[in-house]
Amino acid sequence: MTATALSTDLYQLTMVAGHVAAERHERVTATFELFVRSLPPHRNFLVAAGLESVLDYVTHLSFDGDQIAWLRHSDELRAAPPAFFDYLRAFRFTGEIRAMREGTPVFPNEPMLQVTAPLAQAQLVETAILSLVNFQTSVASKAVRVVAAADGRPVMEFGARRAHGPDAALLAARAAYLAGCSSTSLVEAGRRFGIPLSGTMAHAWVQAGESETAAFEEYARLFGERSTLLLDTFDTEAAARAIVASGLRPGAVRLDSGDLLVLSRSVRAILDSGGLATTQIVASSDLDEFRIHGLLSAGAPIDAFGVGTSVVTSIDAPALGGVYKLVELNAGGVIRRVVKKSSAKATWPGRKQVWRYTERNSRDVIGLDGEPGFTGAAPLLEPVLHSGRRVAGDVTVGSARAWCARAVAALPETLRRIEHAPAYQVDQSPGLRDAIAEHGSAPPR
Amino acid sequence: MTATALSTDLYQLTMVAGHVAAERHERVTATFELFVRSLPPHRNFLVAAGLESVLDYVTHLSFDGDQIAWLRHSDELRAAPPAFFDYLRAFRFTGEIRAMREGTPVFPNEPMLQVTAPLAQAQLVETAILSLVNFQTSVASKAVRVVAAADGRPVMEFGARRAHGPDAALLAARAAYLAGCSSTSLVEAGRRFGIPLSGTMAHAWVQAGESETAAFEEYARLFGERSTLLLDTFDTEAAARAIVASGLRPGAVRLDSGDLLVLSRSVRAILDSGGLATTQIVASSDLDEFRIHGLLSAGAPIDAFGVGTSVVTSIDAPALGGVYKLVELNAGGVIRRVVKKSSAKATWPGRKQVWRYTERNSRDVIGLDGEPGFTGAAPLLEPVLHSGRRVAGDVTVGSARAWCARAVAALPETLRRIEHAPAYQVDQSPGLRDAIAEHGSAPPR
Repeated sequence: MTATALSTDLYQLTMVAGHVAAERHERVTATFELFVRSLPPHRNFLVAAGLESVLDYVTHLSFDGDQIAWLRHSDELRAAPPAFFDYLRAFRFTGEIRAMREGTPVFPNEPMLQVTAPLAQAQLVETAILSLVNFQTSVASKAVRVVAAADGRPVMEFGARRAHGPDAALLAARAAYLAGCSSTSLVEAGRRFGIPLSGTMAHAWVQAGESETAAFEEYARLFGERSTLLLDTFDTEAAARAIVASGLRPGAVRLDSGDLLVLSRSVRAILDSGGLATTQIVASSDLDEFRIHGLLSAGAPIDAFGVGTSVVTSIDAPALGGVYKLVELNAGGVIRRVVKKSSAKATWPGRKQVWRYTERNSRDVIGLDGEPGFTGAAPLLEPVLHSGRRVAGDVTVGSARAWCARAVAALPETLRRIEHAPAYQVDQSPGLRDAIAEHGSAPPR
Repeated sequence: MTATALSTDLYQLTMVAGHVAAERHERVTATFELFVRSLPPHRNFLVAAGLESVLDYVTHLSFDGDQIAWLRHSDELRAAPPAFFDYLRAFRFTGEIRAMREGTPVFPNEPMLQVTAPLAQAQLVETAILSLVNFQTSVASKAVRVVAAADGRPVMEFGARRAHGPDAALLAARAAYLAGCSSTSLVEAGRRFGIPLSGTMAHAWVQAGESETAAFEEYARLFGERSTLLLDTFDTEAAARAIVASGLRPGAVRLDSGDLLVLSRSVRAILDSGGLATTQIVASSDLDEFRIHGLLSAGAPIDAFGVGTSVVTSIDAPALGGVYKLVELNAGGVIRRVVKKSSAKATWPGRKQVWRYTERNSRDVIGLDGEPGFTGAAPLLEPVLHSGRRVAGDVTVGSARAWCARAVAALPETLRRIEHAPAYQVDQSPGLRDAIAEHGSAPPR
């Protein structure tokens, strides 16, 4: 969200300076593709996210005079040619981007975002694009699992305090909602993206009251049925009994510590026998998809879940290894497909398209761009930026969320479970196979 | 860095509305303390970080008219009293903050930051403060281990592409440098904080050249001795031989894949026999403290390390469980110490101070504020904000880094190793013990 022109690695600038010095910075067009080499543990698929923030970044990218002056006087760029600073002064991103829609399930080696632009432009944007896509895709890919485990019950995301700073919290709230969470606690995300907000109360509210009951009463007086009263400041069951005795009718109560299976049952019984059968039980406390699945499998009478840390940091896979690799160069119409052959980090040549068959035998095919289409399969990379301008308007997170739900529902059922599933079938097209053979590159992993 | 007034959980606002309705929002003064309950795995201590960004946040915190209008019309706050919105309109943080200096080693249950302010103010800032401190402390606490493993060799942080967004990358670069990294690749961090920058080249540079040798030559022509040439685009040893044959004299070469021990030895031999004994070897590729320690223990001739993902995400402990808990209320001079008793999440009552003995038998004592000092021990919580204003000027990251190095060096040697060490001794003062006994709270954990 807050990327600046300097939100980039130094080497992007030194390489751009080198391309300017060699006068190929705008003369050569490059295609870079963003993909992951393998799935993290406990992921049967990824959910693409981050595209909107990428488009926001590239369409606003420019250098101001202060930034250029600073670069010019830095030790690292003092050797750069004057033409480099002139180039930065006039810099605008004028290239093309094709990408999978946010919310699309994605598999290893499939380009999820593809930049075709003058070489220097395509190079410069690498760092911020990777950071935006890697992170948001991580969060969406974790959230979709937590939502699946909750089996139709609302999952409220409230992880801001454990996110990697306030801006990461904002990006995470959006990615989590996109992947199916029902709401966020982060007010800025509500305002910025129109995501529904939800909240309960903190222990400090209970502690600051004259008594626990007084604290509950004050809150319920103000917020009525919207109130979710927090039970575990002193003793969870005693608090539930106090609510019944007080005659309050809160919309929900929240369990935040202890054995959530045992407590949800005992609190449910206390509420039911006290005439509060419609008061819901919300559970939180370091929950993830496995704990939620365990609670529900054991029959815990929990109506909604509050999830924070595990989703906003994608805690079991906190860094997605998405890479952004040069695959094709075009110098005045002469096209050169390129590869790297680094041990365990090789790449496939050429500008690509990904095709998905969703009927019966679901599978994907990675092909070269321009190969004839595959009957019955849909292309996943869509043009989103043309000559530096957005092809369509902004995509709301609500529509991306609806698309995500449909696209995930179309996956084989085994992939949508939280247990490890056999790998989804992703084939190479004949054209891609030939191109790889020609370049002598071992297939990545 | 980019926290707004709405970078907060909804419940902070509903609780503030409740405090306003009960007219205790400014009448009651509260003290909240930020601490962790336990160390993450593979951490013998934490390194406090994030204070500067907290001070920036609280001293700039205010609500604008648009934000207030949005809140007033939200479903969640429609029930709040008009006085609440008036309160937000005039909101300024006028409280006190005491904190450990950035770079200070910190242990479980020790308050590293303490807010004493009118109840509503102290409540409202919880979310952003936790997010800022949890994240930056995570990164600093990981970086200090990586730096220790490198045993005096420079550690260049270049993790922006795997950070949780561009803003997290910026905060991470600062925290990593504070804890001893030698430089960052992130240009914005260089400009904003004065952190030394470093960079190498990407595979795409080599791929975009006429040949690998031509790419090396072009880069070295521009950046001379500052050049670090990347060897593994096609074949690491062949690239090293090509450099020798070309007569280039790069400052360094970089290994980024394959068996770094084997390759560092063979590349060192190629360079040495080619008259490039002063060309350094930089290694990267998913390095962390354990891999670096392993390489150096085996005698790998590596001069510097590039580290990204593991540091900027604190990958093995990506979410620090720092909490912000109410410990004391002061209503017109009547002081009430408070606790919560939640299972495994209990808290200790009262406003505290942490004392550190560094001579011979190093240990800390957590005491109540106002207890007589402990001879030979230094208090770690220092006043940094008074009546909403900074007590001293900004602290540069350079001075925090120097402080960190000294404070870490004063720790027992076993703690500074990357292996698990016996827990550092942290005692309760007699006054704190009495207060806990009085409140009947079990000690946390």
